[in-house]
Amino acid sequence: MIKPLGQRVLIKRAEAEQKTAGGLFLPDNAKEKPQEAIVVAVGTGGRDENGKLIDFTVKENDRVLISKYGGTEVKIDGQDYVIVSEQDILGIID
Amino acid sequence: MIKPLGQRVLIKRAEAEQKTAGGLFLPDNAKEKPQEAIVVAVGTGGRDENGKLIDFTVKENDRVLISKYGGTEVKIDGQDYVIVSEQDILGIID
Amino acid sequence: MIKPLGQRVLIKRAEAEQKTAGGLFLPDNAKEKPQEAIVVAVGTGGRDENGKLIDFTVKENDRVLISKYGGTEVKIDGQDYVIVSEQDILGIID
Amino acid sequence: MIKPLGQRVLIKRAEAEQKTAGGLFLPDNAKEKPQEAIVVAVGTGGRDENGKLIDFTVKENDRVLISKYGGTEVKIDGQDYVIVSEQDILGIID
Amino acid sequence: MIKPLGQRVLIKRAEAEQKTAGGLFLPDNAKEKPQEAIVVAVGTGGRDENGKLIDFTVKENDRVLISKYGGTEVKIDGQDYVIVSEQDILGIID
Amino acid sequence: MIKPLGQRVLIKRAEAEQKTAGGLFLPDNAKEKPQEAIVVAVGTGGRDENGKLIDFTVKENDRVLISKYGGTEVKIDGQDYVIVSEQDILGIID
Amino acid sequence: MIKPLGQRVLIKRAEAEQKTAGGLFLPDNAKEKPQEAIVVAVGTGGRDENGKLIDFTVKENDRVLISKYGGTEVKIDGQDYVIVSEQDILGIID
Repeated sequence: MIKPLGQRVLIKRAEAEQKTAGGLFLPDNAKEKPQEAIVVAVGTGGRDENGKLIDFTVKENDRVLISKYGGTEVKIDGQDYVIVSEQDILGIID
Repeated sequence: MIKPLGQRVLIKRAEAEQKTAGGLFLPDNAKEKPQEAIVVAVGTGGRDENGKLIDFTVKENDRVLISKYGGTEVKIDGQDYVIVSEQDILGIID
Repeated sequence: MIKPLGQRVLIKRAEAEQKTAGGLFLPDNAKEKPQEAIVVAVGTGGRDENGKLIDFTVKENDRVLISKYGGTEVKIDGQDYVIVSEQDILGIID
Repeated sequence: MIKPLGQRVLIKRAEAEQKTAGGLFLPDNAKEKPQEAIVVAVGTGGRDENGKLIDFTVKENDRVLISKYGGTEVKIDGQDYVIVSEQDILGIID
Repeated sequence: MIKPLGQRVLIKRAEAEQKTAGGLFLPDNAKEKPQEAIVVAVGTGGRDENGKLIDFTVKENDRVLISKYGGTEVKIDGQDYVIVSEQDILGIID
Repeated sequence: MIKPLGQRVLIKRAEAEQKTAGGLFLPDNAKEKPQEAIVVAVGTGGRDENGKLIDFTVKENDRVLISKYGGTEVKIDGQDYVIVSEQDILGIID
Repeated sequence: MIKPLGQRVLIKRAEAEQKTAGGLFLPDNAKEKPQEAIVVAVGTGGRDENGKLIDFTVKENDRVLISKYGGTEVKIDGQDYVIVSEQDILGIID
């Protein structure tokens, strides 16, 4: 498994579907399409200007909303994951 | 529902109308058209350089003025919302 | 009425006239035309790097000099106003 | 009169002449032409990162050297002035 | 051998293979191809704003994931190495 | 005479010659031609983020090496001088 | 001799050879060709945000690896040297 470095997060995108489990509908024609994803692992943690570790706001298994085209795609054991910076996560889906 | 991450805010745009409830008239030919919106949810909070949580200036149900083209559009249960950074909100309408 | 967010200021531009009340003459052919305006409302206040509220230098009813093309125009009850960042105000007219 | 905002300074350019009072000769073909000017008023003062007021290095009536094309021109009672940021002043002429 | 300067790291890329030892499969058509590598040496250490040495998150012999095209290639005794900034390492492979 | 403002320095370029007094030879075809100069006056001093005056590293009469095309040229009593930022001085010639 | 200003370093590039003394082979077709060099003199020292002198990581006679095209070339007594910022040095060759 991959432990993301710094303030990065490893996520798994949800399958594309018209109406998601969270009741979130993602229109086809949106300029900047957000997409649901599950947080698989948070990173080793970034550091602020004083060298203090920054806490993550998201945690494992959180359902999050991310931009469709951000991050770096990796494949682990045949499955697709994405490594994104936590600040590129738009929100947490309750 | 979505909890925006960091200093982001979830808003619902007001219907386009010539004369809004707050007496705010938005001309058609303005270069950068601002638009009324309602704050639906504030985010998890950003952090300043010392890692201290930054308070939100806006709160739920505030009527605010935002730029017409900023933010990321999302649809929840068939309704349109926008996730914007709080610093892109121009003002609060009393 | 609108309460500008952060270090923004709501202003009303003075009518264009050759010789203003303050004796300030604004030439037609200036490259970057400044323009007189009245401060209608100061914002909720910006914050410095330590999260401390920054005081406004201008206050309500101050006559100020701003760049002609800066800010965002809004109409309230049929009158034109502009929301500008305080640091885009060039000076206060005594 | 105008009180410049922040770290700005109100200056009056010296008349163009071949040999200035300070013995400073300004060549016609210099790529970036500096020009003599008199400080008419210093601003309300900028603030450093800790919110502390920054002192001005120049003061009223100082003869200074500025770039010919910087700043914003304003006319007060028929006379031309320029509002420049203090850090765009190249030097003080003794 | 080379001791990288500052927050840089000396790495040796893994041989290109379809299925790596860590079970990490790297698709041919990924827009930004990440690639496995081994950390050979960490640098002399960067410094934060207060001049304090920043610890490395990776250490010698860590298997890491880096962007395929980042860093500077060097050859030592006929073998290819890469010098990358630690913040360009995407994650550590357990 | 001119007192440069902030961290600026007033210098006088050395005459162009193939082999300078310091044994420094400046090739004609160098991409970025450095050039010898004499420090005539240091500025009023810049300030760091805490508002503390920054000391100058160079002092009057130092022979320095600067980029040939940097700074702003001024003429004083018929002689050419240049005002440069101290950080654009490459080195001091012993 | 030249004393570089600030965090700059004066270096002398090693002669181009296929296999260097340190066993470092530099391929002809590398996109960004690094090159061996000897540190001849470190600078007067940079300063961090608090005005404290930053120590140099490299010292005189260190063999270092730098980018082939960085820095400013100078000739001293007929020999070629380069002035580079210390942070553009990739590593120290042991």
